[in-house]
Amino acid sequence: MSNFQTNLEKYAELAIKVGVNVQKGQTLVINTTLEGAELVRLIVKKAYEIGARNVIVNWSDDTVNRTKFDLAPDDIFKEYPEHRAKEMIELAEQGAAFMSVISSSPDLLKGVNPERIANWQKASGTALKQYRQYIQSDKVSWTIVAVPSQGWADKVFPDAPKEERIHKLWEAIFKATRADVENPVAAWKEHDETLHEKVNYLNAKHYKKLHYKAPGTDLTIELPKKHIWVGAGSINENGHEFMANMPTEEVFTVPVKTGVNGTVASTMPLSYAGNIIDKFSITFENGRIVNVKAEEGEEILKQLVETDEGSHYLGEVALVPYHSPISQSNILFFNTLFDENASNHLAIGSAYAFCIEGGKKMSQEELAENGLNESLTHVDFMIGSPKMDIDGIKEDGSIEPIFRNGNWAF
Amino acid sequence: MSNFQTNLEKYAELAIKVGVNVQKGQTLVINTTLEGAELVRLIVKKAYEIGARNVIVNWSDDTVNRTKFDLAPDDIFKEYPEHRAKEMIELAEQGAAFMSVISSSPDLLKGVNPERIANWQKASGTALKQYRQYIQSDKVSWTIVAVPSQGWADKVFPDAPKEERIHKLWEAIFKATRADVENPVAAWKEHDETLHEKVNYLNAKHYKKLHYKAPGTDLTIELPKKHIWVGAGSINENGHEFMANMPTEEVFTVPVKTGVNGTVASTMPLSYAGNIIDKFSITFENGRIVNVKAEEGEEILKQLVETDEGSHYLGEVALVPYHSPISQSNILFFNTLFDENASNHLAIGSAYAFCIEGGKKMSQEELAENGLNESLTHVDFMIGSPKMDIDGIKEDGSIEPIFRNGNWAF
Ligand SMILES: [Zn+2]
Ligand SMILES: [Zn+2]
Ligand SMILES: [Zn+2]
Ligand SMILES: [Zn+2]
Repeated sequence: MSNFQTNLEKYAELAIKVGVNVQKGQTLVINTTLEGAELVRLIVKKAYEIGARNVIVNWSDDTVNRTKFDLAPDDIFKEYPEHRAKEMIELAEQGAAFMSVISSSPDLLKGVNPERIANWQKASGTALKQYRQYIQSDKVSWTIVAVPSQGWADKVFPDAPKEERIHKLWEAIFKATRADVENPVAAWKEHDETLHEKVNYLNAKHYKKLHYKAPGTDLTIELPKKHIWVGAGSINENGHEFMANMPTEEVFTVPVKTGVNGTVASTMPLSYAGNIIDKFSITFENGRIVNVKAEEGEEILKQLVETDEGSHYLGEVALVPYHSPISQSNILFFNTLFDENASNHLAIGSAYAFCIEGGKKMSQEELAENGLNESLTHVDFMIGSPKMDIDGIKEDGSIEPIFRNGNWAF
Repeated sequence: MSNFQTNLEKYAELAIKVGVNVQKGQTLVINTTLEGAELVRLIVKKAYEIGARNVIVNWSDDTVNRTKFDLAPDDIFKEYPEHRAKEMIELAEQGAAFMSVISSSPDLLKGVNPERIANWQKASGTALKQYRQYIQSDKVSWTIVAVPSQGWADKVFPDAPKEERIHKLWEAIFKATRADVENPVAAWKEHDETLHEKVNYLNAKHYKKLHYKAPGTDLTIELPKKHIWVGAGSINENGHEFMANMPTEEVFTVPVKTGVNGTVASTMPLSYAGNIIDKFSITFENGRIVNVKAEEGEEILKQLVETDEGSHYLGEVALVPYHSPISQSNILFFNTLFDENASNHLAIGSAYAFCIEGGKKMSQEELAENGLNESLTHVDFMIGSPKMDIDGIKEDGSIEPIFRNGNWAF
């Protein structure tokens, strides 16, 4: 086996055993682009070998999608196929595991009428709302992994010879996901423990607020009384561990919806709905976004904020040290799965129920009473840099350093 | 543009304009294997350019399917995904057009437990029954086109160098579908007219019976009083023409379910459900299959006959002269879409309602009263050869030659 084949096998193994951690008799749903074929075939085989009852592969093609956005009539973007949504919801109800294999070019939908994109985001968000609740409350196991596409590799390695770019992106993905080490499953176990030490420290502190300072950023974020910091491995309704993102370097919790004030500046480009949004800042008053500016993609950013009422508020606060491996690789992936793990970030949109004590069993109303935001959308954006300091403010007003110069201060 | 690209463009154009003949505002459903990506992307673009409202592409992968047949538990093959079936039925009700892009290796499922295959055929046949009725009664437009896969090309051109086989199969497909001529759409119009001359001749004759004689074959087939011969272009419920198969060289009608007697010998291998059935003969008494023998794939052939009650009877009688272009190419495609157009053939299973006067508006009961067979399945098998003679027997007992030495006798 070539080195590439060995790493691909290990990556498939990670996706199955650490990512969704498929159980005997379980159904696995894989949503993938055509570029994922080689990896997906390995994953399907390993899933059945472990004893999966069924593996459902839903393929899609970026070129077909782009052609549709360019040429189909307007009204089609307001309709999400009803039976596909029902199928996903039923599979979640039945306890299936869900894997996404992504590879989109960051510029896939550049130049498309932003209204079409916004309509489609809204239609799919609405149709898949129940499914998303299963995912976002960690009731079912889910994971996201990535494979290169030519368009994506062109964006990440524009200076490399064209024929080497996909290979270089594979190498970067293997490195970021620890698929290239001797025993990736053991490496992930160790990594999981490291992140849990940070989680335990922060949870013992019960900070009332976080205060962010950096060039262009002066932001205060209130945390719910019963907030919980989480990181790395999650546990589903049946008690099985899974890793929702591969890679993952973040430790995160939820903000109080109405407790965010000040301005925050982005530090990395954000690839959203097939477009790049870059060099932007967002201003909050009592949690609500009152102003956005962007040097690139401002229209798309505004459409994102206008998705629904909840997309005017934050749903996630995540801490990633500047010396994280992905950040140190100095590769800008133009893909949130990777870039969010290189940088402190926030998310516009819905909050995770499991980030609050008892949240998994709360109704939407109870979650809202505890300060959690709800929205059709959830989009991470990166704000970390080596110039960022973060303080934790306790109930009694005392202040403790959490981050200094972009890295953990404890 | 290379010669290949030019032909691929013309093939896409044929599939859209002659095959399904997509209308402005119509939805097109494409069921395709991953190997179809390059062609399908062209087809999607052309469909939207003509004014299609939506193009739904359902991808599947032969390797994933084979892995499932090898490794999944038994019971999964008895379940067809309910929402997928409902979606297909609704789309047919709404007047969508349906295109299949096929490329399976003829040996795809070789060695798989035949019971799994039979269960899956039965489950999908049952779940998609209503959808199939839309197709088989020509209420909606549909077509089947083919693209090479490595496994298929290996089977058709085993003696060519490995790296040339896919190219050779493309050439053979372009030739058989007339995609390589100067003006393919015009060529198909002319071809359509030629086949209609044969159709008109046979319809004017009102034969009561056909009598087949060839080595291993002595078979009499009664035709329903109101039978209609058809060929080439079809017309859907809304009056739009379409070409259900590309290529198509056949002129065909339906037998009286209980009016088939004698024995018929196959003259070409039959690729069915991922297996090859070869050198077989079938004996009928009052229409019912009472004996089958096969040198290869006998078990699969028996499973096919046991699908349901209707799969013990014939549903189609088709005439193709031995000097048809596909036959003259001397290429054995191991694929019914091509091989049925090189040879006289019959089909086990359901009969087409449009092959009887007023049939499109008849209930299942009325169709049965007129002698038409009903089944979950419909599988063509080839019986033509240069040694085949066919007589037409009229109501008054007079006999006229239809085929002599494998070719039209009129
Ligand atoms: Zn995050
Ligand atoms: Zn997030
Ligand atoms: Zn036929
Ligand atoms: Zn047929």
